[in-house]
Amino acid sequence: MSERLSEETRGPLLDPLLKNGWQMVEGRDAIAKTFTFETFVDAFGWMTRVAIWAEKWNHHPEWRNVYNRVEVVLTTHDVGGLSALDAKLARKLDGLV
Amino acid sequence: MSERLSEETRGPLLDPLLKNGWQMVEGRDAIAKTFTFETFVDAFGWMTRVAIWAEKWNHHPEWRNVYNRVEVVLTTHDVGGLSALDAKLARKLDGLV
Repeated sequence: MSERLSEETRGPLLDPLLKNGWQMVEGRDAIAKTFTFETFVDAFGWMTRVAIWAEKWNHHPEWRNVYNRVEVVLTTHDVGGLSALDAKLARKLDGLV
Repeated sequence: MSERLSEETRGPLLDPLLKNGWQMVEGRDAIAKTFTFETFVDAFGWMTRVAIWAEKWNHHPEWRNVYNRVEVVLTTHDVGGLSALDAKLARKLDGLV
């Protein structure tokens, strides 16, 4: 899983995410999305579910939480950019909402 | 609790925090500290304990987590700056480490 996405794999893995609210981060090979919930409890409850999957897959988000909002950035530090693990984790984050 | 700190209350409440790793945030009436743990599980476990207190006191941190590191900013949006609640939450954050 931990290879930087090639030109061929990039489109099929990223296009569905970019159509679902994810955006490329300026100046980095990374994707970002802001998740907004009704309350802090909803936001942090979602973060807790994400945290368990992130640890299980040993792939962790960069994320910032302010009350009901969570800004997430995904990239694979080991390969200096996006890998298939980022796409997998992004799909999981969307699915856990 | 939710009044902006006066000149008189500011020192007694903030000085002990500033001696314990908290810093004033440039350009905002807010305090910040970076907490570093051994692992992601340690960092997120601490965040979970903090989250429960934050919700109980209805006072929530701005925070960013990257693996074993958590950057926290405390301020009271309702009063446009630091209140006694920020000092109380800061002491709790330190105590929960």
